[in-house]
Amino acid sequence: MYRVYGDIFSGNCYKIKLLMGLLQIDHEWIPVDILAGETDTPEFRAMNSNGKIPLLQIGESEYLPESNAILNYLAEGTAFLPAERLTRARVLQWQFFEQYSHEPYVAVARYIQRYLGLPDDQLENYRSKQEGGHKALAIMEEHLAGSDFFVGDAPTIADISLYAYTHVSHEGGIELDAYPNIRNWLDRIEALPNYVAMTAENA
Amino acid sequence: MYRVYGDIFSGNCYKIKLLMGLLQIDHEWIPVDILAGETDTPEFRAMNSNGKIPLLQIGESEYLPESNAILNYLAEGTAFLPAERLTRARVLQWQFFEQYSHEPYVAVARYIQRYLGLPDDQLENYRSKQEGGHKALAIMEEHLAGSDFFVGDAPTIADISLYAYTHVSHEGGIELDAYPNIRNWLDRIEALPNYVAMTAENA
Repeated sequence: MYRVYGDIFSGNCYKIKLLMGLLQIDHEWIPVDILAGETDTPEFRAMNSNGKIPLLQIGESEYLPESNAILNYLAEGTAFLPAERLTRARVLQWQFFEQYSHEPYVAVARYIQRYLGLPDDQLENYRSKQEGGHKALAIMEEHLAGSDFFVGDAPTIADISLYAYTHVSHEGGIELDAYPNIRNWLDRIEALPNYVAMTAENA
Repeated sequence: MYRVYGDIFSGNCYKIKLLMGLLQIDHEWIPVDILAGETDTPEFRAMNSNGKIPLLQIGESEYLPESNAILNYLAEGTAFLPAERLTRARVLQWQFFEQYSHEPYVAVARYIQRYLGLPDDQLENYRSKQEGGHKALAIMEEHLAGSDFFVGDAPTIADISLYAYTHVSHEGGIELDAYPNIRNWLDRIEALPNYVAMTAENA
């Protein structure tokens, strides 16, 4: 059985919980508290030298980090990762967009507000993160004008990756009022069979 | 024939030039000048709404952005992207590490020094980017203690992704003296048949 080290309120970890729910993959969830330093112990670094969650344990001794690499591993052979070459590349296109042009803004704005409590010396950084977040959302909004999901006409792990932090972007002060296509797309994800909410048990 | 929009001195673009050299993939290279605003025109945005290079044109009307998605597309079916499920996930693990924990530090330090000329108001940011760069390099150094390449015992696109900015990290003031495993690994990449240097023609 898979073991997942994570924190369900971290979007990167929640991606794994959501896909495992959608695919009904049996797993053990080990809650890890980043703020308490639990990813920075020698024991944790021995499993992931980069000291980050989520971390997937496969069997006794294989550890796979990086949320989007884990999604690709778990979705292999399912409808969430189609086999066709260009389609696979498009899934990766949006996942790399997520990690480079979306997460560092949308997730970090949320981190500053939700976890750090929006201290004065972070205000300028917070606003610049919000600005970058809106740039990413505008690109997503435009893309979704022509399609129900990010790649092809059915949900893939590209949608899972982008859904994770987008659906809680308001927790970083980034509202979705100006993005009706994104709001409709969030609804489509939430209507999928076996959808799991971020507010599910951290277990 | 493939068309690539890029700038060979950008590590993200150079990745594509290097893999296409190693695999001897025929292509047309269209030089694009970011600093002159050439990625921010309506014409370019129609090809890539995120306004970034590299961009791969496939046939008449398919455009694929994101350097690591392009590498995955081009390497499919070759030794640079093995087919086995966990091996593929490990390749992605290092590529997502590159885009999240390496490039935003190593490449940005280089950008501030090489392209912006290290202005005073960027010094603090520059130093913090160097610090993050060294963290990424330490993780790579440790991993390479046990293996010649990042995934398995032969070069993959994970190596191509990490090589691109690592081998010019000194242009951002990040020296490799403390990383002998990395320096040996750079030598192994540079000894590959059909290796293409970043100083090759931007064409």
